[in-house]
Amino acid sequence: MLEKLKKEVYEANMLLPKFGLVTFTWGNVSGIDREKGLFVIKPSGVAYEALRPEDMVVVDLDGNTVEGKYKPSSDTPTHAVLYNRFRGIGGIVHTHSSWATSWAQAGRDVPCYGTTHADYIYGPIPCVRNLTEDEIKEAYERNTGILIADEFEQRGCDYNAVPAALCKNHGVFTWGTNADEAVHNAVVTEEVAKMAARCEMINPSAAPAPKELQDKHYYRKHGADAYYGQP
Amino acid sequence: MLEKLKKEVYEANMLLPKFGLVTFTWGNVSGIDREKGLFVIKPSGVAYEALRPEDMVVVDLDGNTVEGKYKPSSDTPTHAVLYNRFRGIGGIVHTHSSWATSWAQAGRDVPCYGTTHADYIYGPIPCVRNLTEDEIKEAYERNTGILIADEFEQRGCDYNAVPAALCKNHGVFTWGTNADEAVHNAVVTEEVAKMAARCEMINPSAAPAPKELQDKHYYRKHGADAYYGQP
Amino acid sequence: MLEKLKKEVYEANMLLPKFGLVTFTWGNVSGIDREKGLFVIKPSGVAYEALRPEDMVVVDLDGNTVEGKYKPSSDTPTHAVLYNRFRGIGGIVHTHSSWATSWAQAGRDVPCYGTTHADYIYGPIPCVRNLTEDEIKEAYERNTGILIADEFEQRGCDYNAVPAALCKNHGVFTWGTNADEAVHNAVVTEEVAKMAARCEMINPSAAPAPKELQDKHYYRKHGADAYYGQP
Amino acid sequence: MLEKLKKEVYEANMLLPKFGLVTFTWGNVSGIDREKGLFVIKPSGVAYEALRPEDMVVVDLDGNTVEGKYKPSSDTPTHAVLYNRFRGIGGIVHTHSSWATSWAQAGRDVPCYGTTHADYIYGPIPCVRNLTEDEIKEAYERNTGILIADEFEQRGCDYNAVPAALCKNHGVFTWGTNADEAVHNAVVTEEVAKMAARCEMINPSAAPAPKELQDKHYYRKHGADAYYGQP
Repeated sequence: MLEKLKKEVYEANMLLPKFGLVTFTWGNVSGIDREKGLFVIKPSGVAYEALRPEDMVVVDLDGNTVEGKYKPSSDTPTHAVLYNRFRGIGGIVHTHSSWATSWAQAGRDVPCYGTTHADYIYGPIPCVRNLTEDEIKEAYERNTGILIADEFEQRGCDYNAVPAALCKNHGVFTWGTNADEAVHNAVVTEEVAKMAARCEMINPSAAPAPKELQDKHYYRKHGADAYYGQP
Repeated sequence: MLEKLKKEVYEANMLLPKFGLVTFTWGNVSGIDREKGLFVIKPSGVAYEALRPEDMVVVDLDGNTVEGKYKPSSDTPTHAVLYNRFRGIGGIVHTHSSWATSWAQAGRDVPCYGTTHADYIYGPIPCVRNLTEDEIKEAYERNTGILIADEFEQRGCDYNAVPAALCKNHGVFTWGTNADEAVHNAVVTEEVAKMAARCEMINPSAAPAPKELQDKHYYRKHGADAYYGQP
Repeated sequence: MLEKLKKEVYEANMLLPKFGLVTFTWGNVSGIDREKGLFVIKPSGVAYEALRPEDMVVVDLDGNTVEGKYKPSSDTPTHAVLYNRFRGIGGIVHTHSSWATSWAQAGRDVPCYGTTHADYIYGPIPCVRNLTEDEIKEAYERNTGILIADEFEQRGCDYNAVPAALCKNHGVFTWGTNADEAVHNAVVTEEVAKMAARCEMINPSAAPAPKELQDKHYYRKHGADAYYGQP
Repeated sequence: MLEKLKKEVYEANMLLPKFGLVTFTWGNVSGIDREKGLFVIKPSGVAYEALRPEDMVVVDLDGNTVEGKYKPSSDTPTHAVLYNRFRGIGGIVHTHSSWATSWAQAGRDVPCYGTTHADYIYGPIPCVRNLTEDEIKEAYERNTGILIADEFEQRGCDYNAVPAALCKNHGVFTWGTNADEAVHNAVVTEEVAKMAARCEMINPSAAPAPKELQDKHYYRKHGADAYYGQP
């Protein structure tokens, strides 16, 4: 069932150690089949070296396991909420990648200091607040997804243009049109988080890139007038 | 004698260079057979590239060599004390891994800034004080172990929930139910030490993760209600 | 057409991932045939793993494609301007390498703190200002090249002696007598940007290297009295 | 001539890229035959990938080439002076390794913040002053050696116990009983320079390790009462 998607999601998961985004099992990738309303996700706590395509778990949009010999990632309810709320996305990544997580621990949005960031992400990467004690107790993982989606709404943030969010004192979620693009955005997020921290170290009063420069780079790669890459 | 344990301890030692936790011979791992009251430890000053399972040294709980053609690690008396005082542990690691040692040199506990830390370690990683000149002269390595165990008692710190300690101006000791888990905790300690330093660089007034979030993550992985990983 | 130059430029491009200067497709190298007035450049948005010598695109000095099945790099107009204005150069590199880009985001010249820098670059590495909104709209990539060349003129900066420039909130351009030397200078720029940031971290009031030391090292390697390397 | 020493020095040179201490050709190692009064050193500006044992250059203690098809390293006069002044050493390394050079650029001694440092180096790593313009013009490389040796004398610093020096705004020299040990000390210097910088980042008011702890670790590995390693 969903063999092609399992293979895609498996391969996207294996990119996390390749790009140095995970230590041990601290990360997971999922990908969705929108027509069937089912998504495929890494099993919980299984080592990347031992992972195989057939180990992927099939889950419905309520987060219930539909097929799989393993339990799905403990973060599955977060993925389910994000698929429900961000209807245009096809893949999600969660990691504790080092620089992005340092920003999450610092509780700060990552400012857009340059075109590397603007090429992929329009504006700062939001860092959402801590869940309250009640929200944690009621449904930690599900409420994490709800919090991200709610904050994007309140901020008027388009999830297509800002494919990443930090969770305070926790880690990072990124997404994309499919699992592979979600991983791509996880790599970008880690790289721009690193350069933003170093930028502030070199110039503590550095300002974000001018809006016209952010616009230029974002729209050079996205939308009707994009001209980066091959036709 | 203790061939299986020697192999386990050898393999755990070889993980130190694999995970980038040691330069040259600056680290050692041991594992204990609680029934026999004997532990197995890396020989002193032997290069990792040249190390073989049969080179491991068997030592009793007073730190006396029972079997082995080599002298055991010079830190053997510290291991012996920790096995005596922390009766539930099965393996110990000592390293000078770079970020953890930087915190030890700074003489500070590593605050729990996020869930990566809370997933494995409940509360800050303690940095124990310097030994006095007399304590150093009397029995440096043994007193290092006594100091760690005493400080854990005084702080009311459960060694099962806090499997790591920094020694001021020196390095790091971690432990676990066996040698492999002790290495796992050494990797975690290095990773969270790195992210804690960067977190403070990004936000000098960052606060530790809220208690309810630390609890959630620690107990998601530990104890009767754990639900992370496979059953 | 220009097969030898294509091979050289291809090989110089492949050095970018080898030296850790690029993530994904965030960089490009070109090399020029001055007699023919044509240069060869990486195609836009093509992954390094898939790149082949025959994929290189041939462009004239107005930035028009002369030969090639792919579109040339979106930064081609910048390269064209630099070849027109800096008549002695034979190769150009553009990257978002991490430390150099952090300085660009910080909007600061990289001071010459030591002989590693002075061995290759005479004086600070200039960080040019942001383009205005009008300059961006009119011709972003071409105006980037004009800005670099203009600022070098205004500062009285010899492009032979200073083979690198940072673009504020963007990235880095380096050049040399050919594509390979331009990459060499990109590696130097990244390395000295890293050490300059760390130098300021260790001593916030550090001063640039004395002029006589910069002169000694620069002229030990360049000009009539050079004595570094083999005759 | 001196085939065995050439091989040793060649192998020690090849450790520099292995341990990440050099970029391009920015480093060199030499080793001496004290009986013959001749030392062997890397040729100037030759790439490590292309280096062979027979390329090593034989030089006398005045810095004159005795045998070799290549010119010796441009730093040869510094090596010659150090061999003349530090009569007990058998090998010398010069690098621009990143963290040590950052301290040199910052113009600061590296404080002894911990036992990793004290295990190998007794007290801070001295950073010697800039040469004056006259000293540079007269004989830059030779005066670099003289300055290091003079400062060690003035500070009452034993070169056996402090096998490393930083040259302000330049780089690092280390030495040892032979070429291999000199490289070992270069690795130690880089590692402790890194941890010292991070230590100050974590605690800007960190103090050096207590003298009794430095003594303990240094003499645990050196001198008549050493007990680290195998007999």
